[in-house]
Amino acid sequence: MIKPFNPPQRILLGPGPSNLDARVVSAMTAPLLGHLDPVYLEFMDGLQEMLRAVFETGNRVTFSISGTGGAGMETCLANLIEDGEEVVVGVNGFFGQRLADLAERWGARVVRVEAEWGRPLDMDRLREAFRKSKARIVAMVHAETSTGMRQPIEQLKSLRDIRDAVILVDTVTSLGAIPVGIDRNEIDAAYSCSQKGIGAPPGLSPVTFSERALEKIRSRKSPPRTWYFDVQLLDKYWSAERVYHHTAPAIMNYALREALAMILEEGLEKRWERHRQNSEAFAAGIEALGLEMFVGPEHRLWTLNAVRIPPGVDDTAVRRRLLEEHNIEIGAGFGALKGKIWRIGLMGAGSTRNNVMLLLAALGRILGK
Amino acid sequence: MIKPFNPPQRILLGPGPSNLDARVVSAMTAPLLGHLDPVYLEFMDGLQEMLRAVFETGNRVTFSISGTGGAGMETCLANLIEDGEEVVVGVNGFFGQRLADLAERWGARVVRVEAEWGRPLDMDRLREAFRKSKARIVAMVHAETSTGMRQPIEQLKSLRDIRDAVILVDTVTSLGAIPVGIDRNEIDAAYSCSQKGIGAPPGLSPVTFSERALEKIRSRKSPPRTWYFDVQLLDKYWSAERVYHHTAPAIMNYALREALAMILEEGLEKRWERHRQNSEAFAAGIEALGLEMFVGPEHRLWTLNAVRIPPGVDDTAVRRRLLEEHNIEIGAGFGALKGKIWRIGLMGAGSTRNNVMLLLAALGRILGK
Repeated sequence: MIKPFNPPQRILLGPGPSNLDARVVSAMTAPLLGHLDPVYLEFMDGLQEMLRAVFETGNRVTFSISGTGGAGMETCLANLIEDGEEVVVGVNGFFGQRLADLAERWGARVVRVEAEWGRPLDMDRLREAFRKSKARIVAMVHAETSTGMRQPIEQLKSLRDIRDAVILVDTVTSLGAIPVGIDRNEIDAAYSCSQKGIGAPPGLSPVTFSERALEKIRSRKSPPRTWYFDVQLLDKYWSAERVYHHTAPAIMNYALREALAMILEEGLEKRWERHRQNSEAFAAGIEALGLEMFVGPEHRLWTLNAVRIPPGVDDTAVRRRLLEEHNIEIGAGFGALKGKIWRIGLMGAGSTRNNVMLLLAALGRILGK
Repeated sequence: MIKPFNPPQRILLGPGPSNLDARVVSAMTAPLLGHLDPVYLEFMDGLQEMLRAVFETGNRVTFSISGTGGAGMETCLANLIEDGEEVVVGVNGFFGQRLADLAERWGARVVRVEAEWGRPLDMDRLREAFRKSKARIVAMVHAETSTGMRQPIEQLKSLRDIRDAVILVDTVTSLGAIPVGIDRNEIDAAYSCSQKGIGAPPGLSPVTFSERALEKIRSRKSPPRTWYFDVQLLDKYWSAERVYHHTAPAIMNYALREALAMILEEGLEKRWERHRQNSEAFAAGIEALGLEMFVGPEHRLWTLNAVRIPPGVDDTAVRRRLLEEHNIEIGAGFGALKGKIWRIGLMGAGSTRNNVMLLLAALGRILGK
């Protein structure tokens, strides 16, 4: 006989996933439906409406990709980029770097606009790089999970004063917790994940495409290599035609729907405010412990809170003790920030006063503060 | 307030998904773990071992792709095919057709070996096509979901008498229900899905690669465009290096593990036998009703049972009445078989004597037999 798998009940305060609300867990126990069942098709319409509300968009083409957040990144790049075209990519963290790498894989000549990790991209440098390039796509990360930095995206639309452009934004660590304002900010394509700020398990990637983005996709000389992530084929299943593409991961979509329902019942503004307050309380607590946040308050994410590891403190030992003695997961730093920061996620159902207090108390105990 | 979603309890006897056992549903309520949690990493090792047992392989590179069965197809083709190379593809149904189409998307010059839908590929024609080509990859569908036909795969290894070849087989509708014998049959690459014969919800795709397949992948001139499905990167996360790639869909993998545990507890041979017996009982019942199976007994799938729709019977009306009056889902025909066949899935937890009896009774009632 195979031993049953009984994972411990972790308090997930890392870069994701975040803990699931009991309602979301319960939604996964609803009866499974086939992907062409009339009840499932109606369910899809409702799911799309809720995704539009959370993305703050009227975009018709808004749905969940059947893969994790990285699948959303690949979907956007694979469909938007044609071989050899220039793409301006902002790079100031691990996920900006990944965006640039994937754009190259998908055939782009990438113009990197860099900033120090933890600092936002400079809008003037971005404008200048865009002006000098022939790029018709500008891509960047809204909420950089590797550093805890929030990139202002409100002024991106002004790039179109220079030349028309499809603006693509990674909202993996912002959607559902920090305003993204897809329509208000005139973002043309965005992807996110089902976990983190949304609060469903990892496994799906919400995406949205504006008419400008779809026009670029429709005018491709050849379809993208990828069939699984082909937006035009996926749209034929998600829209009235209902042309079979792949067997829907229905249970994951049930969980996503319940998480979205909880977001809309809480109210977007209230939810953002909850994330802001808990992040600020956490930062105040960190400073009271004599520690320092990695990103200044102006560009600090409310979801992913990066803390500088004090000199002389053993990164790995602290994280291991948090896990073993408190069942608390926090994240390590990536790349150049390895050993330099801890990444604390306060996201979705995990963004609570109690989690803030518990983590501060546990950190204080372990650091002997 | 958003209305709660309460889907009806369907009896899923279509081409997939199949119904979930309560143990699999329950597995999804276990506490979520992060993708780098030591408990999750150990869980992954166990999952891989169980996947190897069900694939009947010792292949080290055996894991679940974070997408549905179609994602598995794309993973195999995207990694194995290099631009412009010839690939021999067997086409005798919708999914063989898809395999050929996707191979072309991924840069192959496809040599199609065709057979009538519902009939297996002719081994002599396959040998001849392979001999005449320069192909180093031969791909086909083991269990053609669109027709209910089982392709013999035992002799494929003899193709290597002609020239070395990577043999790729689609086991989406066979794995866990019909022997695949990856090692015994010297298959180099195979993909499947988490649902159907496996019995977990749709959302994951088990894959396996032999050393011969990996050698071809490692010798690529450039990495595949796809990052999400890059087997060498995925392997670095699934093997000892544990290099972060994407956030694991942990809950789906819990469900997959529980479904695999149930397969191994039942025993592969017993499980195959259960599927065989229920399929044969169903076929006997269909013939007793005066109807006819689409595929002869020799090449008939035990999982997907195609029934010819009798002349004068309204395909859509019968399926609608089964759904509305009995909560039973069955599948329609695809393409040229639309209106010509029904596709009855008896798979995983759905392959039971009671389901066979109930469906025959309901069909008899609706058809007035």
